[in-house]
This record gives sequence, structure tokens and C-alpha cells, in this order.
Amino acid sequence: MRPWKVLARRVLLSRPPWMEVGVERVELPDGRTVDEFLWVKTRDFALVVAITADRQVVLERSYKHGVRRVALSLPAGYVEAGEAPDQAARRELREETGYVSDDWVSLGSFTVDGNYGVCTEHIFLARDARRSVQAGGAGHDDLEEIEVLTMPLHEALAALERGEVAQLSSAAALALAAIAVSNAR
Amino acid sequence: MRPWKVLARRVLLSRPPWMEVGVERVELPDGRTVDEFLWVKTRDFALVVAITADRQVVLERSYKHGVRRVALSLPAGYVEAGEAPDQAARRELREETGYVSDDWVSLGSFTVDGNYGVCTEHIFLARDARRSVQAGGAGHDDLEEIEVLTMPLHEALAALERGEVAQLSSAAALALAAIAVSNAR
Repeated sequence: MRPWKVLARRVLLSRPPWMEVGVERVELPDGRTVDEFLWVKTRDFALVVAITADRQVVLERSYKHGVRRVALSLPAGYVEAGEAPDQAARRELREETGYVSDDWVSLGSFTVDGNYGVCTEHIFLARDARRSVQAGGAGHDDLEEIEVLTMPLHEALAALERGEVAQLSSAAALALAAIAVSNAR
Repeated sequence: MRPWKVLARRVLLSRPPWMEVGVERVELPDGRTVDEFLWVKTRDFALVVAITADRQVVLERSYKHGVRRVALSLPAGYVEAGEAPDQAARRELREETGYVSDDWVSLGSFTVDGNYGVCTEHIFLARDARRSVQAGGAGHDDLEEIEVLTMPLHEALAALERGEVAQLSSAAALALAAIAVSNAR
């Protein structure tokens, strides 16, 4: 099962630092060529499932314009230049929620779109998360107003099932974390 | 927590039927305006976690150009015009793998990007899936060569943990299905 060969690549739209869109001319393993296979590149991001010692998940409630509604999500943010994904995860958790943790593990890195690429989501589980006295939920420069809340993991999963988690990135992370935590019991 | 107000919207790039990219001028609840908030629209898709009576998951192994490697994924495809998401799910499962089921349940619909929108992934669980004598894995018009395989659910989750599932869409669905199946036991 061989990879496709990229014969040519050009940019159609460039909006630094947020997005690039373009096309590639590709050759398939069977010899066919596709003249304009679209690709999209947006910024990679890190997302954190932070769980306290008493199994409360740290969640955010905010209006997300891509979803067009208020929903629950997990602390997340773009990986900045020169930053490792786990550093971005620690920073975003602290900046957005005021929580910190000393127990971090990766739950995987996933490509957001199998055809266009788009970006990579890095998912982290932070156990024994605690509210830090140093941080207080300020310092983030997001456009959205964010309400930070906690709820037991099983209630977060019930909220997910009821459709209260609207974004794929958060749904994936919450489900992966539930499996990881249940395996570790 | 109020939604943003869209003051103006324009298209920057149009590649029907695959993709549209544009910007909106939006007004935030606090009165600030953002002149060019990007949006992307690609086609919605349905994805199926099909599990046989003996708890084998129906998987695909293929090269995905957006990921740039061969990886495991779940049967999935675009929702065609005039088609309901669950119809697309049934069709894709049959066309791509030759499997059918009479026991379908939704595991949720999720927006792929909280900022840009992009598209919606509709996730379905198909229980008691069986290989149909009528279908045989042919009939799909995907560019990729697809190998269909089955493995026990716990092995699929182990493969996911080892990084053999590269796409967020499949990782999310597999994790959500594992939780749904374990709750139903």
C-alpha cells in the first residue's frame, strides 16, 4: 500500500498565521493523476482533559463561533512557535482555567482531516489537577468569554451523550480520557 | 453568554463541491468587532463503528493523503445531497466493506473546528454487523485502495493507543463506541 506522489503544489489562499489553502497534483499508486487535490493547513493545537483527585473534569462553557452555539469544551489552544505540544497544553490549562497538574500523559496526536490534513490535535490527560493560587483564569487572549466549571467524569460523559459537547476535538478527548482512566483503575 | 453577531460575510475561495473558504466581520458581545474571522466549509461526513455479534470491529487500512501515511480508520464518507446522515452511513459501510446491519444508533454529531466550522461528523454505531452476500467491498469510487479487516474491540483500542489510528474522526468514533458498548453490557 504505497503513498501518493506529490508532483506539484501551489498555494491558493494565505492568511498567516492562521491558515493556508492550496492544491497538489498527485500521482496515485495505480498511475492515475489527480490535478487539484485540496489541502488546508491551520495551526496545530493542544487540548487537556484535566481531572482532579476527586474525579472532577475541568470544563469550559463558551460560545464558539464555528459551532454557532454555547457548548461545553475542554481547555485547548494553539501550539505557539517554538513550543512543544505538552508545553502548550500546560500553558492553556493554566491560562484558561487556573488549574495546574504534575501528572501529565499523552492520549495521542491525531490529524484532523484525512483528505485535507488541516492540522494536528495533541490530546493530554492531566491527573490530580488542582486550582493554582498563582493563576486565576485570566491572562488568556481568546476572543470568547469562558466560564470554567467542574463536574464528575461520569456527568461529563452524560453531557457528551446529550449533545452538550459540540466540538469533535473535545468529544474525542473526553472519550479517550474516560477509557484511559477506566483502564488505570 | 451571547452569540457573536455576523455583520458581513464574503467568500475568498470556492471549490465546489468540496470546499469554500471565507471571512466574516463579526461583533463580539462586548462590542469589539473582528474584521476578518475565517470560516471554512467542507462536506459533512458520516462514519460507522460496525461491530459484529462476536465483538469484532470492521476497520479499514489505507493510505490517507491528509495524514501522509497508511493507518487504520473506520468506514466513512461524505453525506450526498438529499441524503440523511444515517443513510450515508449505511451506504458507506456497505460500499466500502460489504458489511450491513439492522441495529443502528447515533453516537452524536460534532463540529470539526470550533473556530472555522469546517464540517460536521455524524458518528454511528452499527451492532450485529454481518458481511452481506450482496455486497463485496466494490462499488465505491474513492481514490484510495482500501483493505478491510476486523479485530476484537479491545485490540482496536490497543491499536488506537499505539498510534495506528491517525485520524481524529476515527479515534473519536472508536472511543465513543467503546464507551457506548461497555455501558450497554
